[in-house]
Amino acid sequence: MVDVVTLGETMLRLSPVTVSTLEETQQLQVNVGGAESNVAVGLARMGMQAGWISKLVDNSIGRLIARRIQWHGVDTSRVVWSENGRNGIYYLEPGCEPRTTRIIYDRSDSAFTTLRFEEIDWDYFNQARLVHLSGITPALSGDINQLTHQIIDQVKKHDILISFDVNYRSKLWAPAEAGKALTQIVEKVDILICSLNDAATVFGHKSKDAEEVAKGLLHQFGNRIVVLTLAERGVLAYDGRNSWHQEAYQASNVDRIGRGDSFSAGFLYGYLTDGIPAGLKYGNAMAALNQTFKGDFFWGGKEEVDRLIAGSSKKLDR
Amino acid sequence: MVDVVTLGETMLRLSPVTVSTLEETQQLQVNVGGAESNVAVGLARMGMQAGWISKLVDNSIGRLIARRIQWHGVDTSRVVWSENGRNGIYYLEPGCEPRTTRIIYDRSDSAFTTLRFEEIDWDYFNQARLVHLSGITPALSGDINQLTHQIIDQVKKHDILISFDVNYRSKLWAPAEAGKALTQIVEKVDILICSLNDAATVFGHKSKDAEEVAKGLLHQFGNRIVVLTLAERGVLAYDGRNSWHQEAYQASNVDRIGRGDSFSAGFLYGYLTDGIPAGLKYGNAMAALNQTFKGDFFWGGKEEVDRLIAGSSKKLDR
Amino acid sequence: MVDVVTLGETMLRLSPVTVSTLEETQQLQVNVGGAESNVAVGLARMGMQAGWISKLVDNSIGRLIARRIQWHGVDTSRVVWSENGRNGIYYLEPGCEPRTTRIIYDRSDSAFTTLRFEEIDWDYFNQARLVHLSGITPALSGDINQLTHQIIDQVKKHDILISFDVNYRSKLWAPAEAGKALTQIVEKVDILICSLNDAATVFGHKSKDAEEVAKGLLHQFGNRIVVLTLAERGVLAYDGRNSWHQEAYQASNVDRIGRGDSFSAGFLYGYLTDGIPAGLKYGNAMAALNQTFKGDFFWGGKEEVDRLIAGSSKKLDR
Amino acid sequence: MVDVVTLGETMLRLSPVTVSTLEETQQLQVNVGGAESNVAVGLARMGMQAGWISKLVDNSIGRLIARRIQWHGVDTSRVVWSENGRNGIYYLEPGCEPRTTRIIYDRSDSAFTTLRFEEIDWDYFNQARLVHLSGITPALSGDINQLTHQIIDQVKKHDILISFDVNYRSKLWAPAEAGKALTQIVEKVDILICSLNDAATVFGHKSKDAEEVAKGLLHQFGNRIVVLTLAERGVLAYDGRNSWHQEAYQASNVDRIGRGDSFSAGFLYGYLTDGIPAGLKYGNAMAALNQTFKGDFFWGGKEEVDRLIAGSSKKLDR
Amino acid sequence: MVDVVTLGETMLRLSPVTVSTLEETQQLQVNVGGAESNVAVGLARMGMQAGWISKLVDNSIGRLIARRIQWHGVDTSRVVWSENGRNGIYYLEPGCEPRTTRIIYDRSDSAFTTLRFEEIDWDYFNQARLVHLSGITPALSGDINQLTHQIIDQVKKHDILISFDVNYRSKLWAPAEAGKALTQIVEKVDILICSLNDAATVFGHKSKDAEEVAKGLLHQFGNRIVVLTLAERGVLAYDGRNSWHQEAYQASNVDRIGRGDSFSAGFLYGYLTDGIPAGLKYGNAMAALNQTFKGDFFWGGKEEVDRLIAGSSKKLDR
Amino acid sequence: MVDVVTLGETMLRLSPVTVSTLEETQQLQVNVGGAESNVAVGLARMGMQAGWISKLVDNSIGRLIARRIQWHGVDTSRVVWSENGRNGIYYLEPGCEPRTTRIIYDRSDSAFTTLRFEEIDWDYFNQARLVHLSGITPALSGDINQLTHQIIDQVKKHDILISFDVNYRSKLWAPAEAGKALTQIVEKVDILICSLNDAATVFGHKSKDAEEVAKGLLHQFGNRIVVLTLAERGVLAYDGRNSWHQEAYQASNVDRIGRGDSFSAGFLYGYLTDGIPAGLKYGNAMAALNQTFKGDFFWGGKEEVDRLIAGSSKKLDR
Repeated sequence: MVDVVTLGETMLRLSPVTVSTLEETQQLQVNVGGAESNVAVGLARMGMQAGWISKLVDNSIGRLIARRIQWHGVDTSRVVWSENGRNGIYYLEPGCEPRTTRIIYDRSDSAFTTLRFEEIDWDYFNQARLVHLSGITPALSGDINQLTHQIIDQVKKHDILISFDVNYRSKLWAPAEAGKALTQIVEKVDILICSLNDAATVFGHKSKDAEEVAKGLLHQFGNRIVVLTLAERGVLAYDGRNSWHQEAYQASNVDRIGRGDSFSAGFLYGYLTDGIPAGLKYGNAMAALNQTFKGDFFWGGKEEVDRLIAGSSKKLDR
Repeated sequence: MVDVVTLGETMLRLSPVTVSTLEETQQLQVNVGGAESNVAVGLARMGMQAGWISKLVDNSIGRLIARRIQWHGVDTSRVVWSENGRNGIYYLEPGCEPRTTRIIYDRSDSAFTTLRFEEIDWDYFNQARLVHLSGITPALSGDINQLTHQIIDQVKKHDILISFDVNYRSKLWAPAEAGKALTQIVEKVDILICSLNDAATVFGHKSKDAEEVAKGLLHQFGNRIVVLTLAERGVLAYDGRNSWHQEAYQASNVDRIGRGDSFSAGFLYGYLTDGIPAGLKYGNAMAALNQTFKGDFFWGGKEEVDRLIAGSSKKLDR
Repeated sequence: MVDVVTLGETMLRLSPVTVSTLEETQQLQVNVGGAESNVAVGLARMGMQAGWISKLVDNSIGRLIARRIQWHGVDTSRVVWSENGRNGIYYLEPGCEPRTTRIIYDRSDSAFTTLRFEEIDWDYFNQARLVHLSGITPALSGDINQLTHQIIDQVKKHDILISFDVNYRSKLWAPAEAGKALTQIVEKVDILICSLNDAATVFGHKSKDAEEVAKGLLHQFGNRIVVLTLAERGVLAYDGRNSWHQEAYQASNVDRIGRGDSFSAGFLYGYLTDGIPAGLKYGNAMAALNQTFKGDFFWGGKEEVDRLIAGSSKKLDR
Repeated sequence: MVDVVTLGETMLRLSPVTVSTLEETQQLQVNVGGAESNVAVGLARMGMQAGWISKLVDNSIGRLIARRIQWHGVDTSRVVWSENGRNGIYYLEPGCEPRTTRIIYDRSDSAFTTLRFEEIDWDYFNQARLVHLSGITPALSGDINQLTHQIIDQVKKHDILISFDVNYRSKLWAPAEAGKALTQIVEKVDILICSLNDAATVFGHKSKDAEEVAKGLLHQFGNRIVVLTLAERGVLAYDGRNSWHQEAYQASNVDRIGRGDSFSAGFLYGYLTDGIPAGLKYGNAMAALNQTFKGDFFWGGKEEVDRLIAGSSKKLDR
Repeated sequence: MVDVVTLGETMLRLSPVTVSTLEETQQLQVNVGGAESNVAVGLARMGMQAGWISKLVDNSIGRLIARRIQWHGVDTSRVVWSENGRNGIYYLEPGCEPRTTRIIYDRSDSAFTTLRFEEIDWDYFNQARLVHLSGITPALSGDINQLTHQIIDQVKKHDILISFDVNYRSKLWAPAEAGKALTQIVEKVDILICSLNDAATVFGHKSKDAEEVAKGLLHQFGNRIVVLTLAERGVLAYDGRNSWHQEAYQASNVDRIGRGDSFSAGFLYGYLTDGIPAGLKYGNAMAALNQTFKGDFFWGGKEEVDRLIAGSSKKLDR
Repeated sequence: MVDVVTLGETMLRLSPVTVSTLEETQQLQVNVGGAESNVAVGLARMGMQAGWISKLVDNSIGRLIARRIQWHGVDTSRVVWSENGRNGIYYLEPGCEPRTTRIIYDRSDSAFTTLRFEEIDWDYFNQARLVHLSGITPALSGDINQLTHQIIDQVKKHDILISFDVNYRSKLWAPAEAGKALTQIVEKVDILICSLNDAATVFGHKSKDAEEVAKGLLHQFGNRIVVLTLAERGVLAYDGRNSWHQEAYQASNVDRIGRGDSFSAGFLYGYLTDGIPAGLKYGNAMAALNQTFKGDFFWGGKEEVDRLIAGSSKKLDR
């Protein structure tokens, strides 16, 4: 029995160790990351049963990726293993003001993009309460876009919630293309998670008024809940009747990558256990903590998150 | 001839190297730290003769600990070496807002807790001007609490000052237990160093008015001097007649652990050479600089401290 | 359904990174190791279902230990988690001719030594084909020695094989004490794994003739099979009727620690799938490969082991 | 004016830093390597003018690759820069007896495989004395195989020598396929460099008698010179009339990758400056030294090579 | 054809790796730096042809220095190689508030200080549009001060601009000595780059009004342009008729060393391509970005600088 | 009271960390080493009182050097501290067959070469049993050569033994120059330690018969004892009447630098406690162990050395 199932690509993440640039580096720090596995890791560390479906090459790199995710208690038993092909990579060069943090994707034609309908254990979805997907998956190829629809259609036959994080990536596709493809997906999902920026770029909701945008999205797509992330301004949710706003926590910026995914994990955790306001609290708390960990993943635990929400965190515990 | 003698436990300090969490780390940075040796190191680097008494296991780890302290010129010739047992360890996982910096103690039943009256070179104390102890020692076991009293009683027979830093550690004992034990000790010491927080938690002096608390402590315990540390608000001293306040220096927060001990070292250095106001200045300066060094220890020198106090520090010296 | 269940203590293993000695090191490489988990890891990497039972403190260090074992697919769901106490540590200073490789144990009073009868999931043993224990466990304390007997007695009620690796550790107990305690255990086990050295030191079988020693042990203790490891001379097994000898593979010596445990894993794998001669082959092959990996664990896979046994290993595969 | 032009793919080379396996590693050591650039580097370090032509993506990884080659003085001005695509990678897990050194190629569809006739500066070849290619290039794709023929045909129109190292890679193609494709190439080259193994696997010359194989190859393909490398048995050259054999130098095995390419560089250096016997000496010396450097590249210099050939190397120069 | 030629000493730069102080470090991070090569690197990365002239010892350390500079495309073909002597070193201990960043020079009697008139390829200067020098060079010795004059005098015979960065270093000479020597140089240069601090310390222009100082310098020395850097207040240029002021960009302070040299590179790039206002913009942008890179060098590129000037930098590009 | 006093230069020792060559390295491992301090360290670790006299610059590098020596218990209280100048450095690039281990000295004009008669605490010598010097010191400059004579002459006035290790360094002076200078020194010393190679190169004793050479040296120079080291053939001592030969121990070659100094330390330890044969045993044992430690220094202890001599070393102690 799994609470949440996610599906998506996870890549090797390589970044410089003691120098500032990829060009110069003699050593690369090895992490792994991918939006959907990041969410699964966050949920598992909060004590939920989370499973992650993907396709990896059965070599040292593929095993490294799966085992780094399984480390946190995520069920990786449904990962499809390929004899051939390659695992996706992304290079990360962390910047700091005013230097841009740069990501170089090297994920074309990865094993994940060859994932086929027949390879998936469809029964696995049926036992879940919620299936979480993201807008990165349909961006990877036409086949995978189609597979995303197949997953959603299959899952909707049962009484299972679907949450979807838009996650627009300008390096993968253009706004118009993304808008067209994602509109068709977003119309089918229950919980839509979207940043204010992506709402404008991808769906053309260009208002600065977050509530207006959230309402606009919900009315356009007919979701049960729209969760709009507003960066340093926090987050806003709208369920067709009520809207809730929650401030962001102040947080040191050690590594922003994965922050949004930890928000999603926190939102889903809170929502599934205690409704939308709890979701916003847990989302913000996990996002803030995530930003203090190197790597995509959330390495904290439930106790720490609860203390942050309760306002009883200490600077130093000794 | 030694200016100051300290006695206490020093542990191996292990913290993650390139990742954020202990759970994930493949390499641990090795430091050593313990309140009383930290003070001795600070004093030695200021040019004073400082000795540190402790008990360690005679193996590579014990030698590592002693030699890291001796590095700075601290006299470790009175360390008692044990053939058996273990050396204490503490694991440090540095946090950053809003993530808690966490310490895991692994110090139970360390060799230090087996230190016995007969093993100590009592004459060594007699040549000192001041003996410095801390509230961590009596927290370690009943035997060691009793030894603390024996030390104080022995030392008081000669004309030697005793300074004592309360250093309450919630992971070692509860406030009530600490309050009871420490009260019996604090009544005997000349110089009481205590944080505003500990004054409230351990001794029940809950006022926000630092001067009121300092006076309250001095009147309760009858110390010659009470030095109250106020975190970012600086420090306040009271000697029964006058009180002095000194602002804290602005300082980057590289590693807070050991900051309080460097304050004590600075205070004792300044006080012994030039009285209470000098003590507050040196204490604040060394605390600020300590916070910029990785590890518990103060790695600066007298010239640097003097420049900071004189307001003539440069950002870059080339 | 688990093929093999092991039970024992696993420690944090700390060794110098860029320098030769523990005394000098600024960084410690972090591994984990313990005879029984090492065996479970070896079995899991060969494709068997292996479970490991132990007791760990529920903190970052305990989680690090469990997750490093779970990494390889070992079932750690029956580990008992303690709120208090400490996890065992061993420091390793690798030597090379003529310098001794030194181990410093810091495992006294670890959480594992507090493992109690009631904390164990006894049903878990019943589903296994074989339970593997080692002579390190009874050396840790009288209570744990007694628990070892309880486990063996419980398991023997069902039709489950028991294998036992003598693993005498001179730093834990004296030969006489070990001999007395281990004799009582060894009499009850089906498969006795013992080095020629330990046969002499612990059980007084001092002949240089391995076959004579194997026969002597089997007749003394009444085991089903005695497996005698002969270091560079290979291994010999005796089952009361036949004896088999198998040469060792030539192997570079990167890290000998864990070599014996990988032999046991290989022997059990081979024996359970194809009888004693297969056991000796797999044992020797896994022992040889283990010695080429840093750390206690076997990081290879079935394909690699099979190629080595088949004599078709390449130096370089590109 | 360039002495030697090489053309081929060079990849990022990633291998574990402090652990033994890729699966476990948290840090990857970054090198670059590719047979033809390895040869160019070797020549440049001996003082020759060497140029390397390739195609790379114009990002941090591509620049890292080019600049690591240019470091040694190789002319990289004719590298073709691509706005899109990916740079090839190979993962290296160094083994040791009896564990296989494993290479995982991740080079499919790299930018190099999109190199087109029109992108090459053909005049650049014309100024060279020799063009060096290897059997890896035609293995990468049909297009690149065709390009190899185009290069050879173009170059042969001028009075420029062509040397070719067979370099059969079983992970890139099967022996039959390689044999067919390489035969068509090898017939056109002046200097054929081939290992005894590849002569058997690819061209079916299965004799153990090296001289017989060298003669067989020369007669089959009509080359000016056949250079047959015999691993620890040294090297043999045949020019249709005379044959020369040269013993290998004893060498520690730090990193075998790139050894063959340094042999080629040494052979070409010696041959171009002083004929075949000099070629064999320089080839063997550079191969031996290469094996003592981490990474694919030869990091030595002419003086060192000359001393080795002269038999006047010291163990320690101080 | 080279756009800009620089001449000066470049040193090995050594700083602690994982600890805070040089005294404690077991590993030193290796960079190279020197004001004039830093400028050349900045220009080369912007796409200009830049050459750097110096003198180095022909050993591994000398080659390391030259190749680290050549990495960025700087022409190092005119470096003079010495068989004897030593290469300069500087040790860097990065501080943070309130701890001073300390530099220990170990550059006395370096090979560079033995550079003689006859060793320089004078024709190389003639093809340049601009020659850039700094006030560090004449500080190194009387001979080198004289050589500086010879260079300026030679260059002025052709229609080549000379820019000069005052770069006063208190560890190399006293203000009076510097003032006297630099005055004689500065009178001959076209473009004078000077910090407000150095204008006061070296030339006695002590006003806080930057424009007044710039005018004062230009009138005193008769330069074509005076560029006055004002630290966090930006930069001001005066050409005898007009003055321009440009705000500094906000920038994280990863490593300030080399910031001023990147300003110079940016100013020269902008000035040579588009006049003074462009020079100020590029100077400020490159200075800000430089401060975010570890090491002296500018590791960015033209696209990044242009985006910063255009105000279109992203925090994260993915 | 000190048993042995040594005097000489000790340098910072820098060698590559994860790569093979200095040219390529991004990180340098920091050790310190110098023949005489190496001897003092070896003696101190055997439990003797050893003091080391030298001159260092009073900065972080100088302190690093002194404290690394003091770590082992060597008395550094008589080191002369200089406000100016530089500390010597040597770069080490470890080779392996057939690649030469290369040392680059950067020690010219170091602070040590400015050590003057008046700066030395002459009384410190008088309390010693033995003063140890080496042939490196007189090679550094004419002044230091003269100082060496002054030391020997002063010491000989008291009843103090002088031992001298020839330690010829071809990078510091030519054989003829060394022969002339060292002859004048060697005539005055009691114990002459010399390698068979140096006996030939420096003093012209070219026989292959070690005993003949030892006798030749003793008769030429009139020493009390000549100790001739024969590399892998062990060592031979001659005292005018008897000669003793001792085999070398087999030892892995981790780092040969400092091996000879540990021999000297062992010889002096053994000789001073138990005569010449003990000296040869301890010398050989410490030399063998030294070779297994990274860095110049001997990191072992008396117990380990005694076990090796007794033939009771274990490969693994657990």
